[in-house]
Amino acid sequence: MPELRQNLATQEWVIIATERARRPEDFRRERRPRPPQPERLASCPFCPGNEASTGETLHVLGEPWRVRVVGNKFPALVPDARLDGPPQALYRRLAGLGTHEVIIESPSHARHLALMAPEQVRDVFFTYRERFRAALKNPQVALTLVFKNHGEGAGTSLEHPHSQIIGSSVVPANIRHRMDEAEKHYRKNSSCVFCDMREEELKAGVRILADTKDFTAFVLFAALSPFHIWVLPKRHTAGFGEATDEELSGLACVMQDVLKRLNRGLDNPDYNFLIQSTPLDRGETEPFHWYLSLVVRLSKAAGFELGSGMFINTALPEESARFLNSVKI
Amino acid sequence: MPELRQNLATQEWVIIATERARRPEDFRRERRPRPPQPERLASCPFCPGNEASTGETLHVLGEPWRVRVVGNKFPALVPDARLDGPPQALYRRLAGLGTHEVIIESPSHARHLALMAPEQVRDVFFTYRERFRAALKNPQVALTLVFKNHGEGAGTSLEHPHSQIIGSSVVPANIRHRMDEAEKHYRKNSSCVFCDMREEELKAGVRILADTKDFTAFVLFAALSPFHIWVLPKRHTAGFGEATDEELSGLACVMQDVLKRLNRGLDNPDYNFLIQSTPLDRGETEPFHWYLSLVVRLSKAAGFELGSGMFINTALPEESARFLNSVKI
Repeated sequence: MPELRQNLATQEWVIIATERARRPEDFRRERRPRPPQPERLASCPFCPGNEASTGETLHVLGEPWRVRVVGNKFPALVPDARLDGPPQALYRRLAGLGTHEVIIESPSHARHLALMAPEQVRDVFFTYRERFRAALKNPQVALTLVFKNHGEGAGTSLEHPHSQIIGSSVVPANIRHRMDEAEKHYRKNSSCVFCDMREEELKAGVRILADTKDFTAFVLFAALSPFHIWVLPKRHTAGFGEATDEELSGLACVMQDVLKRLNRGLDNPDYNFLIQSTPLDRGETEPFHWYLSLVVRLSKAAGFELGSGMFINTALPEESARFLNSVKI
Repeated sequence: MPELRQNLATQEWVIIATERARRPEDFRRERRPRPPQPERLASCPFCPGNEASTGETLHVLGEPWRVRVVGNKFPALVPDARLDGPPQALYRRLAGLGTHEVIIESPSHARHLALMAPEQVRDVFFTYRERFRAALKNPQVALTLVFKNHGEGAGTSLEHPHSQIIGSSVVPANIRHRMDEAEKHYRKNSSCVFCDMREEELKAGVRILADTKDFTAFVLFAALSPFHIWVLPKRHTAGFGEATDEELSGLACVMQDVLKRLNRGLDNPDYNFLIQSTPLDRGETEPFHWYLSLVVRLSKAAGFELGSGMFINTALPEESARFLNSVKI
């Protein structure tokens, strides 16, 4: 029987369409296998030796570099944007002010996060925080989003492992809505909605993927698509910039565990992840709670999703979690 | 220079990232060509002769049939849904109540809307209205969405030309938001925001694709992706069910013109379209205004879009319109 489920934090409803439920193993079979990648690729702008073909170097870890942060050559937002052309009578326009950086995660073209050495994954998360904190100091930036697109189906054309960070001068309505919902819950219950969800998940125990000293990872009760996963820090902190070295090391471990299971269980699927954080780093008193959200791109949003904003998930979240937990890594 | 543009009706902001703007012709070259389809396919459940392999027949046009409406074999929502399993302490669930139909647009497996005879396209739109009106009489249905997924990248696995109609027992937050925005605009300006947009587009004249007796088609000023198109009826009516025979015949012509340009200009691209209408058919006094929205699936939503809800469009809407208008059909 299909059912509707609501995400307590975002208040989004999703249709879990069990009538057409596929077993998690089926997702693996439906995929085109991805060709294996070489360790170095002469034509790849992110491979060592081609440093001159990227945008400006903004940050480097190690010598020779282990992680490199560069300006995006085709930025979605730029620091010196001005409005060209005539004003539009009825319509609103703004200059596309902001920043857009690329985090090259490793010198290796082939070894993406699931295959990296654990220290390298930690280096990547440390770099995220470094650039996140740098963006906080930029008076032009109101919202910072760290995100990763892995594979063509997740919106990237470059195979070399990389993430991106966009600093936006406007806070999108979606993000503001999330903050508002967290605040509403806080006012009503005197508790953080994300802390409440984590406790509920641990109690239910049927969607948990990892529960460590500092983090809990689980498939969402109202997952928008198969393998829609949240990784929540246990310490209630609104901003990602506040994460400690110890926490980030723990996050790197949990993330690699989850990514290894996806990589092995679903044969290197396309995925996105992103870090949701308050627009400004305001410490532990805020009702918001930063977290990492991961979506495996196995299904495509179609006309119904585009028109209604409501997703149809053909997999039962509890079964997705059971499948991932059964994968040997 | 990148710029942010706001859709006046939905209030959604989009980033138009002209730094990485591709020329419209480039989209054609990047696509994998789709294999030509046979006129009949023995294994296709929607081809004539295989009528027994679809869900229940709900409506038929012609004898032998020209258009057939059947129940979806894997419905997202069902009329007799009940909640299985134990209640969830903190989380909200609802039974997946509603209807889910498939509109088989033609006996031909190969001839999709851009290639059909004009009378056949009109038959399809008449059938949409027929089933839309039938859903209005169903007390279980609060919102009816007619939509089409064309091609694998648009979320369909069946090539045979078909559309879908979902009747939902809940009104998604997205749709309610659209209604609210239309009402706000109406209260503030004593005018319909969609009528205002159509007038503005005709005045600007740089994004218009078609302007006929009853309809105006244009690429949106704040297009979420390249070739994001709205087709607006000139008569202010809130509900799609109110469209007259003459209007629907006109809509079929405009849609076929637009789809032929896309088919020729972009080599049969994947696309979705859907009809936005008020949840209930309340006639001409409502501040809402029904319309058809079309999205060509050339780019993929990536981590930034998933996290922020804000889209990055790499094509200038004015150039997309110019390109489509230059296609010879």
